[in-house]
Amino acid sequence: MLNASPDIRLQLSQAQSLFPTGLRQLPLTSVLVTNGDIDHVAGLLTLREMQPFTLFATQGIHDVLAQNPIFDALNASVVAREAIALEMPFELAPGLTATLFPVPGKVPLYLEGESVKTDMIGDQTVGVELKTDSQRAYYIPGCALLNDDLRTRLQGADLLFFDGTLWEDDEMVRAGLGQKTGKRMGHMSMNGPDGSIAAFVGLDIGRRVFVHMNNTNPVLRPDSSEKAQAETAGWTIGQDGMEISL
Amino acid sequence: MLNASPDIRLQLSQAQSLFPTGLRQLPLTSVLVTNGDIDHVAGLLTLREMQPFTLFATQGIHDVLAQNPIFDALNASVVAREAIALEMPFELAPGLTATLFPVPGKVPLYLEGESVKTDMIGDQTVGVELKTDSQRAYYIPGCALLNDDLRTRLQGADLLFFDGTLWEDDEMVRAGLGQKTGKRMGHMSMNGPDGSIAAFVGLDIGRRVFVHMNNTNPVLRPDSSEKAQAETAGWTIGQDGMEISL
Repeated sequence: MLNASPDIRLQLSQAQSLFPTGLRQLPLTSVLVTNGDIDHVAGLLTLREMQPFTLFATQGIHDVLAQNPIFDALNASVVAREAIALEMPFELAPGLTATLFPVPGKVPLYLEGESVKTDMIGDQTVGVELKTDSQRAYYIPGCALLNDDLRTRLQGADLLFFDGTLWEDDEMVRAGLGQKTGKRMGHMSMNGPDGSIAAFVGLDIGRRVFVHMNNTNPVLRPDSSEKAQAETAGWTIGQDGMEISL
Repeated sequence: MLNASPDIRLQLSQAQSLFPTGLRQLPLTSVLVTNGDIDHVAGLLTLREMQPFTLFATQGIHDVLAQNPIFDALNASVVAREAIALEMPFELAPGLTATLFPVPGKVPLYLEGESVKTDMIGDQTVGVELKTDSQRAYYIPGCALLNDDLRTRLQGADLLFFDGTLWEDDEMVRAGLGQKTGKRMGHMSMNGPDGSIAAFVGLDIGRRVFVHMNNTNPVLRPDSSEKAQAETAGWTIGQDGMEISL
């Protein structure tokens, strides 16, 4: 699947003086990976120019990276890999606390065996809570189901980025692009009685942004009725380069 | 290193009727990989949408891919992996014969151990000869030395794409971007008495194109004296999207 925002990273803005200077240095100190699949990890290969940063992920995701020697290109002398336990808050940057938590999902596509569970709760598909003294935001790019635990957790959030892969569960099948439904891929779809738009009605969330759209999702078309429907329901359709200040 | 043309593939134009149709089908039947390093193989991860093709490479390069489960995303049911022996011509497309041959070089960066040989002749850095009934072209994106064997082979070619990584051997060191020289990275530089521009003087080659330029190479600047010098010596500076007909 090609996703609209294949390589979302949390790039924390900090005082420029905190960063080493140099022609190839980026203002980047932390990268947090929430899934081991290609659209989440391939971007790491473009960060291999001796750029120092800390790579945060669950042990399960670190294990996936460790099984692929190509990621040794992230030189261990400048890139520290830190394993983060679920539900344990850690400091992602000064004043910013992050907590990883499990969400219903599945293993990366390239690690699928013969049968695939898409309701797995483990450390390979996770969401992120980001907290400052006064604000609380969530990043959940893949999620198979909004269950009660998740609903309780998100209540009162200031900002939510949520899985917007498909509009309809069978959208790729109908487009002749394969046999996989959204459910089979571990994604809730936006539309319908089981969809994410309906599931979030009534939750107290300040701002809701769909991310991780598949290229079949009609909300990507600026003039589509589906985009208008999502917006009327209070959602923003995420775009590359979007910046949001709280 | 970031290269100007990080993902050169040989995309063979054939009659459209040869190709399966479908919204996501590309007019692509063969991919030939000549090196196991990231800038040569990472592009494969963007071809994982059930696009059928044959992946040609030496056994050594196939072994590198096989060591990284992330490349299993190229579904074995639609992507055939064919190992090509050095110096054995094979049909890359109807009417087009390709032959892989070893050139002086080194192993991929992420497989380097404590000491690195850059004059290795093996099956991890190779050049390609492309032949039709009437024409002969070469693609050599990485090469540490133009030795006599290679000189003899290239004599009389209609077209050559050649390693243009650096202008000067110590260009990255002088720019403050690290301690590595071109020689250490397994690349001939363009300039100077040992450089590729001098080495090719007197060879009978129809058209010469530099590819695989590093982002420190001044030939990438349209108004640089180095670009003018290379062009005066009969070279073209390769660009993304360039198409050449023989």
